[in-house]
Amino acid sequence: MDPEEVKSRSLDLLSKAGIVIRPDEVQNLELADFGLGDIEHIGLQIVVYVNTERCCAKELVMLPHQICPEHRHPQVGDYPGKEETFRCRYGKVYLYVPGPRTQRPQAVVPKNRERWFTVWHEVQLEPGGQYTLMPDTLHWFQAGPEGAVVSEFSTKSIDEADIFTDPEIIRVARKQTY
Amino acid sequence: MDPEEVKSRSLDLLSKAGIVIRPDEVQNLELADFGLGDIEHIGLQIVVYVNTERCCAKELVMLPHQICPEHRHPQVGDYPGKEETFRCRYGKVYLYVPGPRTQRPQAVVPKNRERWFTVWHEVQLEPGGQYTLMPDTLHWFQAGPEGAVVSEFSTKSIDEADIFTDPEIIRVARKQTY
Repeated sequence: MDPEEVKSRSLDLLSKAGIVIRPDEVQNLELADFGLGDIEHIGLQIVVYVNTERCCAKELVMLPHQICPEHRHPQVGDYPGKEETFRCRYGKVYLYVPGPRTQRPQAVVPKNRERWFTVWHEVQLEPGGQYTLMPDTLHWFQAGPEGAVVSEFSTKSIDEADIFTDPEIIRVARKQTY
Repeated sequence: MDPEEVKSRSLDLLSKAGIVIRPDEVQNLELADFGLGDIEHIGLQIVVYVNTERCCAKELVMLPHQICPEHRHPQVGDYPGKEETFRCRYGKVYLYVPGPRTQRPQAVVPKNRERWFTVWHEVQLEPGGQYTLMPDTLHWFQAGPEGAVVSEFSTKSIDEADIFTDPEIIRVARKQTY
């Protein structure tokens, strides 16, 4: 899927969620393919509202069945690591965190990357549903069949510091604006 | 206006903003009258999504022309004070902060309380518009004629620590759930 189509579908999802973004935010919409070049399956689109030394808020936009791959937010020097709350605004999202493995999870991950998804305790989030993750907690998530829009409320984001389970993921390539 | 009507109008505004809240959040909707007993004019309605040691997110719901009175979020012990970003989701909000006094401001405040509004630099926020306030910055805001829904992204909220300009405001009475 070409970047323009990813962008146009993402804006459509934001609109379905009733979320208004400004023209400059449309322009700067972040398309994150995590360096894998397969954004339709592994990737997400991000609107960063604010990211200061203390506080960060974003909208995460996901196409149907799109996956944000497994990662964690470690301590960096004096910074205790990113704490984040996900709140589903539109669609459905399946979030996976440490805990007892869910039997018959809803998510489907690409066969060739399955081993890089190691936590399988499922939390299902529908609009109004939310979940808070403390720093350094492994997690990944996949949108349902309608796609999803998820608000993220957190402490400071340092994307370069995120640690992904999949060694092929190039963190520095994560940020791409089209 | 009786509390049930304030609540019902607030839920209507959230719905117009496309924001889904859960039944337990409807139940716990906070009606803040700041102890003045005149919530229709001075007050706001709040849905707290999360408030941990490090991070807080809320929706602020305002009836037409409703005012959140002037206050600031000071340092408390080791805590440097609350930093907050307001992002307008629905309606219009007039935010007042320190700076050159705006000629012909849009806000109208009750005559008998006018002296407790001391900062008059106006920032107009429409859907998609946002503004970040550093700790200890005096501010107040009023909704436009349609009311407003404003997302607040911040560091930890300690409502009891807020310092209001109006000495009649009883901070401890601020939290009321109907």
